[in-house]
Amino acid sequence: MQKVFAIGAKDHKGHLELLEIERRPVGANDVQIKVKYCGMCHSDLHHCKAEWGNCPLPSVPGHEVIGHVQAVGPNVTKFKVGDAVGVGCFVNSCRECPECKDELIQYCAKGVTGTYGSPQSDGTSHTKGGYSQGIVVDQNYVLKIPGNLDLAAAAPLLCAGITLWSPIRHYGVKAGDKVAVLGLGGLGHMGVKFAAALGCEVTVLSRSASKNDEAFKLGAKKVLITTNENAFKAANRSFDYILDTVSAKHDLGAYLTLLKTDGTLVIVGGVPEPLELRTFSLIPRRLKIGGSLVGGIKETQEMLDFCGEKNITADIELVPASYANKAWERMLKSDVKFRFVLDIEKTLSKDTVVDA
Amino acid sequence: MQKVFAIGAKDHKGHLELLEIERRPVGANDVQIKVKYCGMCHSDLHHCKAEWGNCPLPSVPGHEVIGHVQAVGPNVTKFKVGDAVGVGCFVNSCRECPECKDELIQYCAKGVTGTYGSPQSDGTSHTKGGYSQGIVVDQNYVLKIPGNLDLAAAAPLLCAGITLWSPIRHYGVKAGDKVAVLGLGGLGHMGVKFAAALGCEVTVLSRSASKNDEAFKLGAKKVLITTNENAFKAANRSFDYILDTVSAKHDLGAYLTLLKTDGTLVIVGGVPEPLELRTFSLIPRRLKIGGSLVGGIKETQEMLDFCGEKNITADIELVPASYANKAWERMLKSDVKFRFVLDIEKTLSKDTVVDA
Repeated sequence: MQKVFAIGAKDHKGHLELLEIERRPVGANDVQIKVKYCGMCHSDLHHCKAEWGNCPLPSVPGHEVIGHVQAVGPNVTKFKVGDAVGVGCFVNSCRECPECKDELIQYCAKGVTGTYGSPQSDGTSHTKGGYSQGIVVDQNYVLKIPGNLDLAAAAPLLCAGITLWSPIRHYGVKAGDKVAVLGLGGLGHMGVKFAAALGCEVTVLSRSASKNDEAFKLGAKKVLITTNENAFKAANRSFDYILDTVSAKHDLGAYLTLLKTDGTLVIVGGVPEPLELRTFSLIPRRLKIGGSLVGGIKETQEMLDFCGEKNITADIELVPASYANKAWERMLKSDVKFRFVLDIEKTLSKDTVVDA
Repeated sequence: MQKVFAIGAKDHKGHLELLEIERRPVGANDVQIKVKYCGMCHSDLHHCKAEWGNCPLPSVPGHEVIGHVQAVGPNVTKFKVGDAVGVGCFVNSCRECPECKDELIQYCAKGVTGTYGSPQSDGTSHTKGGYSQGIVVDQNYVLKIPGNLDLAAAAPLLCAGITLWSPIRHYGVKAGDKVAVLGLGGLGHMGVKFAAALGCEVTVLSRSASKNDEAFKLGAKKVLITTNENAFKAANRSFDYILDTVSAKHDLGAYLTLLKTDGTLVIVGGVPEPLELRTFSLIPRRLKIGGSLVGGIKETQEMLDFCGEKNITADIELVPASYANKAWERMLKSDVKFRFVLDIEKTLSKDTVVDA
């Protein structure tokens, strides 16, 4: 066993503090990673507050993990010491169900092992994530990070990035398509970047003009101010796809009017309340609504390779470990462009004081 | 102009009576049809009560029209006098929009011309449907009925049939798929027949065992009694598709649990109230919900040809024109297996008395 410092929570109040946790010895197929950066995802906070189900304590969140390989087990062939690597939302899966065999481990029929809060395969404890100095992960759940990418800015690719990349590929978004992105946060800003990089004409749907500059900088061609009734009506039947990243209640029916015949609204944002869906919103144009959950390991690697080719990373605000609670507070207010990343290696130690 | 007798409504109370209406002279591209049978669709009643929008008066419903060609215009090449033909939900469309050019006239961007209740292209009147002795329709909107099919039982193929056939084809239902049919009425029973004929394993989802015999006779392999909690839970992740034909409010979230990863729930039933949709119902299995509206002319002909090959028609109760109001009453109570068809040629005349 190896002890590492981490920031996590001892209760479900959503408050982070310094912890010391144990990592398992490096097994035959394991990669030991010295964590350099970890992105802060809204799910981290939902989890620590036990808002999305069980949260065993102490909880250590973090599933946008970037670091360097520190050691490898004897059977490890994919990685060597010193490699820049990443860990996303999963660290194991059953490997036997049709979904796992199909490289869709995120939909593992037996339940995937999340990077934090999941039972370990040995049954002794629960997984703890990347807000920590180090992590030990089976090589099959570790990603290679292309050498040209800024490592801090690459961290959010491992959740925010793949959450948009996977549905973009699965639902068939292609060059020339007119794609609207609803919600310009950690998820949405990756949707704009990917769709633009794939040659789509991207429109950001926004309640106000305050994000216009960012939208255009990210690659959008247009911004549709959704509170402008005339502009909204004029955009009727405009889009092939809407990438809906909003995690608060919103009016699906209104947005569906923006889709062309055979258009698709892709839902990636977990909304606590039920949304209203009128069947007459879908039927007269043969519209589809489809969900999508992050992505599998193979697909995540494909995304990372694409990001390497196109030099795509997230837009981030790098913060010290001591800022973690403050960052969560600001995240709740969407006061970040567009993702906080913890500077773990330089700022997390036995002396870290995590302010409230 | 030619006068024909029809049954229709002079107000929006949902009551039918004998009317005499005019049909346009046979134009160069027109086919004049002597109506033999006309199916009774729930939409007919919704329309006559102006529940789904404007209903110009007098209204003559009916869009499952079967008859024989009585006369053709000089440019008509597709039909000759005596042919058995059908008319479905549309009698014209703009022919210029991308949807029309793509044989998706049901989604015509300028609005398709419905068989009843739509403005005519000459602007002088509104269209009147198949509850009438005769109808005149452009040859491009007329279907050929395979010679081996019972003409009365073929009538419902023109709306109920194509309403299921089109999404079955569009959403990729194929042999071997596990398909659930929700709602065993005029629409649902065609879904069972088509999916079974295509080699799917069909399960009928029903609130009680009362329809078991019919379900099996139609081609279902199983019936899942949805009020049996244990059976419902055991059917978790069972189906590739759910064909949802229910037109009353229902619990989408519960039915979505029955779908496998990447499954699709197809909505063809117009539900007046909004349904509740939780994004967490879709995201964790990458599920889709898709709508579909009847089908285009080309696709309807393909369906009819398939029905000819496989000898598929609807299960009907043939009733005289005088029974029309009574049939509507019983239809409202789902008291029909599975579609009323009016015996127009034999029972509609100047002497018809339509009882209340």
